[in-house]
Amino acid sequence: MHSVSSIQENAFQALDSFQIEIPSWGFANTGTRFGKFLQPAAASTLEEKFSDAGMVHKLTGITPTMALHVLWDLPNGLSDAATIKTLEKQYNIASGSINPNLFQDQEYKFGSLCNPSAEIRGKAFAHLLDSVAIARELGSRDISLWMPDGSNYPGTQSMRRRIEWLEEALQRTHAALAPNQRLLIEYKPFEPAFYHTDIADWGMAAHLAMHTGPQAVVLVDTGHHYAAQNIEQIVTWLLHLNLLGGFHFNDRRYADDDLTLGSIDPYQIFRIFHEIHLSGPKALLQTAFMIDQSHNLKGKMEAMIQTVATAQELWLKAALVDREALAKLQTSCDLISSEELFRDAFWTDVRPLVREWRRLRGLPEDPLAALKESGYVDRIARERGGKLAAVSSYA
Amino acid sequence: MHSVSSIQENAFQALDSFQIEIPSWGFANTGTRFGKFLQPAAASTLEEKFSDAGMVHKLTGITPTMALHVLWDLPNGLSDAATIKTLEKQYNIASGSINPNLFQDQEYKFGSLCNPSAEIRGKAFAHLLDSVAIARELGSRDISLWMPDGSNYPGTQSMRRRIEWLEEALQRTHAALAPNQRLLIEYKPFEPAFYHTDIADWGMAAHLAMHTGPQAVVLVDTGHHYAAQNIEQIVTWLLHLNLLGGFHFNDRRYADDDLTLGSIDPYQIFRIFHEIHLSGPKALLQTAFMIDQSHNLKGKMEAMIQTVATAQELWLKAALVDREALAKLQTSCDLISSEELFRDAFWTDVRPLVREWRRLRGLPEDPLAALKESGYVDRIARERGGKLAAVSSYA
Amino acid sequence: MHSVSSIQENAFQALDSFQIEIPSWGFANTGTRFGKFLQPAAASTLEEKFSDAGMVHKLTGITPTMALHVLWDLPNGLSDAATIKTLEKQYNIASGSINPNLFQDQEYKFGSLCNPSAEIRGKAFAHLLDSVAIARELGSRDISLWMPDGSNYPGTQSMRRRIEWLEEALQRTHAALAPNQRLLIEYKPFEPAFYHTDIADWGMAAHLAMHTGPQAVVLVDTGHHYAAQNIEQIVTWLLHLNLLGGFHFNDRRYADDDLTLGSIDPYQIFRIFHEIHLSGPKALLQTAFMIDQSHNLKGKMEAMIQTVATAQELWLKAALVDREALAKLQTSCDLISSEELFRDAFWTDVRPLVREWRRLRGLPEDPLAALKESGYVDRIARERGGKLAAVSSYA
Amino acid sequence: MHSVSSIQENAFQALDSFQIEIPSWGFANTGTRFGKFLQPAAASTLEEKFSDAGMVHKLTGITPTMALHVLWDLPNGLSDAATIKTLEKQYNIASGSINPNLFQDQEYKFGSLCNPSAEIRGKAFAHLLDSVAIARELGSRDISLWMPDGSNYPGTQSMRRRIEWLEEALQRTHAALAPNQRLLIEYKPFEPAFYHTDIADWGMAAHLAMHTGPQAVVLVDTGHHYAAQNIEQIVTWLLHLNLLGGFHFNDRRYADDDLTLGSIDPYQIFRIFHEIHLSGPKALLQTAFMIDQSHNLKGKMEAMIQTVATAQELWLKAALVDREALAKLQTSCDLISSEELFRDAFWTDVRPLVREWRRLRGLPEDPLAALKESGYVDRIARERGGKLAAVSSYA
Repeated sequence: MHSVSSIQENAFQALDSFQIEIPSWGFANTGTRFGKFLQPAAASTLEEKFSDAGMVHKLTGITPTMALHVLWDLPNGLSDAATIKTLEKQYNIASGSINPNLFQDQEYKFGSLCNPSAEIRGKAFAHLLDSVAIARELGSRDISLWMPDGSNYPGTQSMRRRIEWLEEALQRTHAALAPNQRLLIEYKPFEPAFYHTDIADWGMAAHLAMHTGPQAVVLVDTGHHYAAQNIEQIVTWLLHLNLLGGFHFNDRRYADDDLTLGSIDPYQIFRIFHEIHLSGPKALLQTAFMIDQSHNLKGKMEAMIQTVATAQELWLKAALVDREALAKLQTSCDLISSEELFRDAFWTDVRPLVREWRRLRGLPEDPLAALKESGYVDRIARERGGKLAAVSSYA
Repeated sequence: MHSVSSIQENAFQALDSFQIEIPSWGFANTGTRFGKFLQPAAASTLEEKFSDAGMVHKLTGITPTMALHVLWDLPNGLSDAATIKTLEKQYNIASGSINPNLFQDQEYKFGSLCNPSAEIRGKAFAHLLDSVAIARELGSRDISLWMPDGSNYPGTQSMRRRIEWLEEALQRTHAALAPNQRLLIEYKPFEPAFYHTDIADWGMAAHLAMHTGPQAVVLVDTGHHYAAQNIEQIVTWLLHLNLLGGFHFNDRRYADDDLTLGSIDPYQIFRIFHEIHLSGPKALLQTAFMIDQSHNLKGKMEAMIQTVATAQELWLKAALVDREALAKLQTSCDLISSEELFRDAFWTDVRPLVREWRRLRGLPEDPLAALKESGYVDRIARERGGKLAAVSSYA
Repeated sequence: MHSVSSIQENAFQALDSFQIEIPSWGFANTGTRFGKFLQPAAASTLEEKFSDAGMVHKLTGITPTMALHVLWDLPNGLSDAATIKTLEKQYNIASGSINPNLFQDQEYKFGSLCNPSAEIRGKAFAHLLDSVAIARELGSRDISLWMPDGSNYPGTQSMRRRIEWLEEALQRTHAALAPNQRLLIEYKPFEPAFYHTDIADWGMAAHLAMHTGPQAVVLVDTGHHYAAQNIEQIVTWLLHLNLLGGFHFNDRRYADDDLTLGSIDPYQIFRIFHEIHLSGPKALLQTAFMIDQSHNLKGKMEAMIQTVATAQELWLKAALVDREALAKLQTSCDLISSEELFRDAFWTDVRPLVREWRRLRGLPEDPLAALKESGYVDRIARERGGKLAAVSSYA
Repeated sequence: MHSVSSIQENAFQALDSFQIEIPSWGFANTGTRFGKFLQPAAASTLEEKFSDAGMVHKLTGITPTMALHVLWDLPNGLSDAATIKTLEKQYNIASGSINPNLFQDQEYKFGSLCNPSAEIRGKAFAHLLDSVAIARELGSRDISLWMPDGSNYPGTQSMRRRIEWLEEALQRTHAALAPNQRLLIEYKPFEPAFYHTDIADWGMAAHLAMHTGPQAVVLVDTGHHYAAQNIEQIVTWLLHLNLLGGFHFNDRRYADDDLTLGSIDPYQIFRIFHEIHLSGPKALLQTAFMIDQSHNLKGKMEAMIQTVATAQELWLKAALVDREALAKLQTSCDLISSEELFRDAFWTDVRPLVREWRRLRGLPEDPLAALKESGYVDRIARERGGKLAAVSSYA
């Protein structure tokens, strides 16, 4: 049994160790294939995104970086880097992972790095090199590669050839990395391709990472799995193989729904965090926690802060597991005792601990309430709403 | 054992009985939430859609009607009906089912007929009445109601209250139907709402249909089911309850992928058709066969013709099952004999029979080849492609 | 905001209202198709099961009834009722729901009530009548009907005919019910039949219940759903239709795994309980809460007590939702506020409240610890272990 | 376009190249956790299994080997090898893959090679060594390792530690292999363990194989996947990595239902076979085709012959794909042409070709009919039925 003060000490240490990256696209309007619902407070310029991210960091204290999307945030490529550096200082937010875009161009209809056309593959590869250069210029460690490539119908593409093209492109990209950079390889079982996706599961991503080189690792998006798949076991394997690069967090009920982290199955996130805690501080350093959500209906700012707070609470719950005692119970196969010990941490109401930690760090105890009091959302809705009207008339 | 000529007679009768409705939106550009891939030959005007549908009917002979989407095809509502009647004659295609749109307007963010706001529910209801009036004016029997309503997060809406609102709206819609009209109620387990969808499965749709009135029936979209769900059993139940109104056909591997019918699991469509054949000619008359697909990557015209031909072949295969002999084997629980008899029809290559039937009906024996020879797609791509460039520069 | 004392009052009222039925087969050895793991403390006689159930009730105070399985617990049918009445008094446990067995007899290979053979259907029907008579004799309100019928291969059975046979059998069973008895109709999508199950989902069960008569209702087994299905929505519909009869609680990751309630997804059980709380005291009276689990690896007694305590805690969490405030937030579509209010109850650590309630009711505050202290499991393991050896040598 | 005679030549070559292994346990009674349905013609002795397998081979000509299960077929281990050699000659069936059993012993309750107890791990390892020795003695190339290990509840076992124990055991087993032997590592996502399975997917199996050594490869059981998983893509990856060892074929609708190959989704098997054909003769030599089914309801002999014939037909269909033409269409991204070409082979009725091949090889043209005419099943049912009665009275 731990004393109250040692629990608090342990808790504060866990809270101090936890940061999570927010995505620039989480502040913009998003939707489904059936349409977007527009929000007056949504960000549409890069400065608006930096402003919003800065506000989230000011209120939560644990989101110092923002993931950037090359096509949307740096439409002019490397030459936009200078603007970004100014915004970083102005809004106290550093650039985080750099996300290439290999799905939007009409030429990528039949694939990007796996396209049967050598010319289109070359174009996609050039975009990867640009992304690496941008990341280097901005001091970003991670390039997050999501490959939308695949096919919709059996027999219409050679899955085998496409593996070879992919391996080649990734190796060549790896050669362009600076020593401190990493290539994060994401997997996804379906969408936007429906029959086959070239990097469909963690096994494919892991093999590609190993084949690519030592700076290539795997990115786990919690929404990119089959129903009922045990994600924490995959995380365990990636940790074991020293291949875990980071997470794109979100939640879902059916497909890649990009809902708020922990909104459907909070126990699962707790179990994932437990595996990270188990692996010690070195694993933590190498694991990028990132949010990847679509706030179609919820207010953008509110949803982001809610997400950050939820992640923080679940991280803390997982930290409170008495891992030493648990290991003993696991070894003796005392199922119910180990389960009860494990869940005791999950059921502990950690919210008072988090509030106290925030107070001591000079942060608002309730960031959602602080956002409301700040009047920030009302202000940006007024300022940005005019643009909304224009877009709305088109849609 | 049946003689060759009786098989052919049976086959031709089955082919004569089969027609399938094509959707106007199947000729337009579609995509995923990650973007659209634009096709030069895609239709964007109503006349282009009628032209394309007319060409499909000319080549296949079994698609005399086209489903219309109120918002996209009749943007001015009832006053567009006159134009449509002209196009019907011009292109030899009649209006088919009428599809209201309850998802695109910004006001429907939190629902249409199930919105907590009485005002928005009223607006959605008014759109339904308009759709009924349009259908009546165009002589369409069926109004196909797909309700996108739902919620994304547990606890954020009262599922219970929303049932009541829905029941009321459907009953009032039913009151507006002409005696020969039907309201087809579609169900879908997820998307665009992710946590709960107000009409999520056939059980909910069937209860709503029964509660609504005798002209309300259920619409089965083959892509709107949980993985591994036995769709032909649901069809059987709806036939038993006299509640089957029709189908939206498509195929999928994971979610509602809207792929070509039979492209992933052709055996399933065969089994569904078998249940219709079992139920006799009256059931057939009351069952609307309709296509609902998104041809994101395939050529629109080619995909539509391929779909129609595939449906026709699977319908014929199912017709060839010796249902009398099968019933006896099923009663005696002779599993392997009944399965072999059932599959014998599936494995029979019916393509020669279909070609012969087409020849006798004055149709091209190979409609895909005939489309190519006609030069139709090249021509419309040239004519419509100009518009594409404009759109493309925006995207 | 509620005061502390009103929260406690509300909580104690909720705890007083909650009872859950334990199954006799939960104390016996169970396994998978790959084999059973035998436990020395497992019950094999009816008296042992009553003894175990009595101990669970003594320690938890909320399990006054035990579900009985006709074939296993009353092998001689009605003539075993007298013995049971004696055991009821001896161990302070009343008979709960009566469970017919329609799967074990070799004659049921191709179905019971849906078997193509009228003779076998008749035998199954007779077993139902026996079960009704047993229930009446034991004063049991509920007969829980789980139908394992189905087929393994497409085309081998007529799904349509089987519906008719089933409807007839259920109507005739209903005619035999005493006025205060109910027939609970369970559904299950697969296993032990793999291609089609005659009562596969809630829609089929609900139609059968409506067709059968006013005393027929639906039984929801939480493990009998497709992956990702929204069970609380189904519960909401059944409540709306006045067709919810009760639950078989358990949890699962993939199929019908019969794991401990809440062990995989506790938030789901909370959401189900919320719908019951919403529906008021009359719905609660008509809803039978029952456990249906297979404790293959966990100790039987420990697992049962853990389950009961978990159900009690989740029931209490759901009771703490401020339903009035929630309704207002839902009406105004304030998504994040409603979600936070809803989850506030879930995250509240209710264990101190439950312990206090137990103390006041004269129950052990920690029933698992009390079980250990009692030495009960060690004692029965010693007493029953001898029999185990004999079985073990056979296996 | 190929000429008729070149198609036939190609077809006969494909048929000559195809053999499939039948499992000894496919002739024995099997069931679900709810019970076994007993068949009078089921085999219960090893000789009966050899006899049945010999009959299948006599009638089909393509099943020269039978997989053996160590615990069930060699209860005395190596000392049973002599008996087996006699039976091999007597019934013209060679021993195929050797299957260890790590799930049946009571000691394996919490795992075998992954059990926290070093003693039990040691016992499991010893059983593996015995299996290797048996395989060597019988001249079997393949040891098929299915690991049932896992856990039922989160937090009750250390998934991380168990990986380490597993890696060690597999490496030590590899050291015992003769140069021509292989260790086939099977994966399975769930059952009999429900929360986590130690080798849950192909990614885990592939990493274990690579870590274990050059003679370790992966075994793909078609029923061991998540719903909607693209199995042919996994096969493609394993071929690319030179890690495909073989298949356990069966079909399923929901879980690991062990139904007849191709009975639910025949198109999937066709697509898998296509990937093998694509990979050339060397890949074929290294790929063990094996059946792993439970014929709970179908007659054992009939089901086995039906399975072999279905596999043969689907293999032939896949062989008929014009792979050269397909590759060109895939490269030019002509989706519909490539799909139509691919499916043309699937829709071709190959049954006449197979009958002709059988006739030329001196085999019965219709093996199911030949089985019936032979009177074999009636005879063994009479001979073995007596034993059934005894068993039946126990169950």
